[in-house]
Amino acid sequence: MFRQSQHELVIKTRDRAFHEFTGQLETLVRRAGLKTGLATIHLQHTSASLLIQENADPEVRRDLERFFARLVPDGDPLFWHTAEGKDDMPAHIRTALTTVNLSIPIIEGNLALGTWQGIYLWEHRTRPHSRRVVVHLLGE
Amino acid sequence: MFRQSQHELVIKTRDRAFHEFTGQLETLVRRAGLKTGLATIHLQHTSASLLIQENADPEVRRDLERFFARLVPDGDPLFWHTAEGKDDMPAHIRTALTTVNLSIPIIEGNLALGTWQGIYLWEHRTRPHSRRVVVHLLGE
Amino acid sequence: MFRQSQHELVIKTRDRAFHEFTGQLETLVRRAGLKTGLATIHLQHTSASLLIQENADPEVRRDLERFFARLVPDGDPLFWHTAEGKDDMPAHIRTALTTVNLSIPIIEGNLALGTWQGIYLWEHRTRPHSRRVVVHLLGE
Repeated sequence: MFRQSQHELVIKTRDRAFHEFTGQLETLVRRAGLKTGLATIHLQHTSASLLIQENADPEVRRDLERFFARLVPDGDPLFWHTAEGKDDMPAHIRTALTTVNLSIPIIEGNLALGTWQGIYLWEHRTRPHSRRVVVHLLGE
Repeated sequence: MFRQSQHELVIKTRDRAFHEFTGQLETLVRRAGLKTGLATIHLQHTSASLLIQENADPEVRRDLERFFARLVPDGDPLFWHTAEGKDDMPAHIRTALTTVNLSIPIIEGNLALGTWQGIYLWEHRTRPHSRRVVVHLLGE
Repeated sequence: MFRQSQHELVIKTRDRAFHEFTGQLETLVRRAGLKTGLATIHLQHTSASLLIQENADPEVRRDLERFFARLVPDGDPLFWHTAEGKDDMPAHIRTALTTVNLSIPIIEGNLALGTWQGIYLWEHRTRPHSRRVVVHLLGE
């Protein structure tokens, strides 16, 4: 019998960093009791991203951070939208370069992630934020 | 009762610019009469993108445009695929750096967008184009 | 009658290159017998991407490769995560800049792709890999 359910996760961030929430998503899938289906994850913001990346060596996330900091420099004089600070426009651009929604099949009751894949909220602002993630589960 | 419907939107572009079509999508969702479900939006082109970005200050879109124009310069001698002009290959690269499909939950009859999220077609070519967007709605 | 099915494709790569698999996906959709629905494609890796791009002039893919090689240089001294070689961290960053999941409507028994859209696995590592792609089909 097909069914769907919707959930909201709130992730508190303190500064520019990665927050893994794979475990919270897996708990939602398990509680929904779906064996086969589809999970859609949508972040309701424009200055933070969702990212699937390696969950083994933490240096991968630090290198991602270093690369994006160089690619989209805070305080770049190119930007006019600076009302909220020098990290404001870079946060929007980092979001555009990555994504705010993910779609992941559910197979045998689990998210069909690869061995080294973790699901992260990537906060791009340097000050604390409360980030809302909407999760839609569909299947049987 | 689960049901699905499919729709096509055609967006006429004149030059490199953002075209918001959040309202048209919300109208489709409302007419389909879905309370709970999933909207999938697919752009059938490789030189324009779909982007969820801030719908408040228009300077954000202008800064996005400035940044991408600097990151992927028109007429860069690196490019060999130049048959359609100096904006041709940059348009493909901008599309690769962003996306052509989006998946957004429908909650209580509305797209589950954040307060400041708008859905844009981002035209990357400098001349007019007619862009087709396919919308798949699923739910009950 | 709504139904869903799940499939796995394994794509063998030899070096950094694009591998089109649109035809294999279309075969899966045809065999599943779906007329109207949604295909979700998820790559279970963090150093290769899924990309929808032009399937006509192969120079487009070569220019994409040239651009990304310049944007994210192999062996960049910025990177600390270098255990697997100088292409390791660039592969993670190229993946973050593109995507690992796609959602494409199925219309009249076919993937709703544009005329020039092909679906590619983009291998970012320079040595051979075996890449797993999970395909979730849903519809009626």
